[in-house]
Amino acid sequence: MTGQARGERNPVQDGATIMEACEVLAGISADTERLVRRYLSPEHARANAMIASWMAAVGMRTWQDSVGNQWGRYEGEDPEAPALVLGSHLDAGGDNDRFDGVLGILLGIAVVTRLNAQGKRPARPIEVVAFGDGLGKRFGNALFTSRAMAGEKMPDPWQSIDNDGITLAQALHDFGLDPARVSEAARDPASLAGYLEVHTEQGPVLEAERQSLGVGTGIMGERCFAITLCGQAGHAGTTPFELRRDALTGAAEAILAIETLARAAGVVATVGHLATHPGVSDTIVGQIHMSLDIRAEHDEDRDRTLEAIRTTCDSIGETRGLAWQWEELRHIPAKRCAPRLLDALTAAVSSEQHSAFQLSGGIDCDARAVAAVTDIGLLFVRCRGFIGERVSESVHVEDIDAALNALSETVARLDRETATPV
Amino acid sequence: MTGQARGERNPVQDGATIMEACEVLAGISADTERLVRRYLSPEHARANAMIASWMAAVGMRTWQDSVGNQWGRYEGEDPEAPALVLGSHLDAGGDNDRFDGVLGILLGIAVVTRLNAQGKRPARPIEVVAFGDGLGKRFGNALFTSRAMAGEKMPDPWQSIDNDGITLAQALHDFGLDPARVSEAARDPASLAGYLEVHTEQGPVLEAERQSLGVGTGIMGERCFAITLCGQAGHAGTTPFELRRDALTGAAEAILAIETLARAAGVVATVGHLATHPGVSDTIVGQIHMSLDIRAEHDEDRDRTLEAIRTTCDSIGETRGLAWQWEELRHIPAKRCAPRLLDALTAAVSSEQHSAFQLSGGIDCDARAVAAVTDIGLLFVRCRGFIGERVSESVHVEDIDAALNALSETVARLDRETATPV
Repeated sequence: MTGQARGERNPVQDGATIMEACEVLAGISADTERLVRRYLSPEHARANAMIASWMAAVGMRTWQDSVGNQWGRYEGEDPEAPALVLGSHLDAGGDNDRFDGVLGILLGIAVVTRLNAQGKRPARPIEVVAFGDGLGKRFGNALFTSRAMAGEKMPDPWQSIDNDGITLAQALHDFGLDPARVSEAARDPASLAGYLEVHTEQGPVLEAERQSLGVGTGIMGERCFAITLCGQAGHAGTTPFELRRDALTGAAEAILAIETLARAAGVVATVGHLATHPGVSDTIVGQIHMSLDIRAEHDEDRDRTLEAIRTTCDSIGETRGLAWQWEELRHIPAKRCAPRLLDALTAAVSSEQHSAFQLSGGIDCDARAVAAVTDIGLLFVRCRGFIGERVSESVHVEDIDAALNALSETVARLDRETATPV
Repeated sequence: MTGQARGERNPVQDGATIMEACEVLAGISADTERLVRRYLSPEHARANAMIASWMAAVGMRTWQDSVGNQWGRYEGEDPEAPALVLGSHLDAGGDNDRFDGVLGILLGIAVVTRLNAQGKRPARPIEVVAFGDGLGKRFGNALFTSRAMAGEKMPDPWQSIDNDGITLAQALHDFGLDPARVSEAARDPASLAGYLEVHTEQGPVLEAERQSLGVGTGIMGERCFAITLCGQAGHAGTTPFELRRDALTGAAEAILAIETLARAAGVVATVGHLATHPGVSDTIVGQIHMSLDIRAEHDEDRDRTLEAIRTTCDSIGETRGLAWQWEELRHIPAKRCAPRLLDALTAAVSSEQHSAFQLSGGIDCDARAVAAVTDIGLLFVRCRGFIGERVSESVHVEDIDAALNALSETVARLDRETATPV
C-alpha cells in the first residue's frame, strides 16, 4: 500500500522533515548566491523529480502534465469522485523563496504521508500539484501553468520569449513537452472537488497577532498605475513659493491623501516608487513619476477609494498648477474563497489554535487562476521578522506543524462531507 | 582719446549691440550643441581676447591677472582714487549661459563706451572685470577667481583636478600663467571703491512683477543637506497600514511641513531630489534619500526655520517609526549689499522705471567673494518665460537698454559723491 521501503524515514511527514525538504529544494538552484529556479529550467526538472519521488514514496501515482506541472494522486475509495487538490508553485526567484510555494506543496504531500502511514484511504482522491510557473519570472506570464490547468485560453507559446531569446515553445520542447499540447493541461471541472493552497503569509499580520495560522478569505483585487505629475522646474533660490509649481510638494499632498483615504476605507494603497526630475538639490522638481498600487478584498471598495483619490489629486493639481497623467498597468479582480472551504479551514484552525484568525490574501497566487475551474481555499502560515528586503523568510517548525495539523483536519472534514452527501 | 577707429561702430554700446556681443561670445564654445566655456580652456582665452578688444576699443587699458581674469581700466581724473569695478563671470556651462555672466561684463563695457563717446572722464577710475571661474564647473571651485581677487587664501592648485585629470596648476600653466603666482591676483582693498554686478535674475519674480530691473538687497545665505529617512520595506498587499513604517509617507509629511514652515517665515526651502528604495510598485518604501536646500536673506531666519523643520521631522519620525539622518553639504552665509551702493542703484532704477523693485539674490555669485574686499551692489535684469529646464534664457533688448541706463546713472551718481567727499 505504500511505496516506501521498510525502515526508510519518509522525508515529508512533519514540520521538521518539511523544513529539511525545503532545504533540499533550496539547493536546486541555478545560482549559488540566491535561490533561482525558473520555469522549464533544468532545476525545474530536478525539483519535479524530487517532488515526484516524495509523492511516490507515500503511495501516490505521479505524472507531469503538458505544461510541466508535477502532479501526484492518492486514490480515494471512489476513484470516480472528484479530487481535492492541494498545492502551490515550485518556481523561485524573488527574495522569499525558501518556503514560498514549496511549503504548500510539501504540506500536501505530508497530509498524504499521514493518511498513508495510518493506512487510511479517503472517500475521494487527493491530488497534490506543484505548479511550474507561479511567479512568471521567466516569460513574464505569471500563473501560466495554473491558468493552463484551469483551461484558460493561453497565448501562443512561440510569442513568449525569455531574456535569453528562448521561446516558451522551445523551452517546453527542451523540457520534453510538446508546445502544441499546452491546452491538454486543462482539467475538467467535474474532476475537481476544490483546491487548497497553503502559503507563507509574506506579510507581518500573523506575527503581530501572535497567530501561527490565518484562514484566507480571498485574494485581493489589485490595480496598479504609473502616474506622471507635471509642474515647472525653477531655481531653488530665486523662485518664491507663490510662483512655484513644485511637482514634489503636490505629490507629497497626494501621497498623504492616498494614505488617509485608503486607511479610512479599509483598502491598502501604496506609492512604492517615486522619481524626481530633474532631481537636483538646487532645482524645484518639474516632474514626478510615481506608482500607485491599490488592493482590497472587495473590488467596489478599491474602485470607490480610487475615485476619491483621483478627485483629490485633481483638486491638488488645480490648486498647485500641476497636471496629472494616469496609466493603468494592472487590473486584477478580487477572488473570494468558497464558503465551504473557508468554513472547513476555519473549523480546523480553531481546533489547532484558540481562534481562527482570518485575513485577505494580499499577493496574487495560483489559487486565483484555479478559481476558474473549482472552489478555492487559502491557509496562511506566519512569517517572522518580516521585512521586504530580507534575504530569506523565517518560518518556524512549530508553525509548519500547526499548518500540517490544520490542513490534515480540513481534508478530513471535507472528506467526511463527501462521504455523507447532502 | 578713444581707441576706436573712426567710422567703426562700437560693438558694445546699447541693448542691441550688447545682444549681438552675447551672440558672438555664445559662439565661443567647446561644444556645438550647447554653450560650454570652461575656466582656463582655449575658449576662455579666446573670449578674454574678444572682451579685451572691446575694452581697448573704448579707451580702456587691459590686462589679464594671475588667475586669468580679464580686466579693463578706464582712467579717472584722479588716477590714485580707488576704482569702481563693474563685472561678472565669463565661464559658461549650465543651461542659462547666453546672457548669464556675460551680460554683466558687457554692460560694464557699455557704460564706459557711453562715457568715452561723450568725451567724459569720471572723477575716479572705472574698471570692468570678466571673472574666469564663476561657476566652478571645471575644478569644482566655484568663485575661485573672484576669491583669489579678494585675497582669500586659495587651495593648492596642484590638488584641484578636472574630469580629464588635469590639475589646476597645469591648466594655469597651459593658459600662460604661473601657478605659483595665484595670490598676486589679490587686490588691495584701498584700490577699490566698490563692485557692481549686473546679472540676469535667473528667476521669475521680475517677470511676474512686470519690472525690467530689480535692485538686489544681498545674496541669500544657503544651507544644503543630504537627508536619509529609514523605515521598513514590506509587501504592498500584505502589510496593513497599522504595521507599516513607510519612509515615503513620512517624507511626504516632512515635505509639506518644510513648505509651510518656510513660507510662513519668508524663507525659501526646496526638496529638489528624492529617491525611493527599493523603489518598486508592490513594495512599501523602506528608505528615502532626499535633499533640502534652504535659503534666506538673513541667516538667523534660515537657521530658525531649519530648527523648526528638524523638530517637526523628529516628531514625524517618532509617530511613524522612522529614523532621520542629516548630512550638511553646504553652509554659505548671507551677504548684504552696501547701503550706499543699494541707495545709488535704487535712485537710478527709480529714474528709469516707476519704482525700484528690490529683491534678494537667490544664487551665489562673484559679488559674494568680492564682498570680502569692497562694498558690493547688485542689479538684476528680468528673464522671460523662466523655467529651469529651458534651453536658453530669454532677455529682451529693452530690458538691457534699461539696465544700461540704470547702471550708467548709478556710476554717475557714485562718481558725483566721490567728487564731493563727505
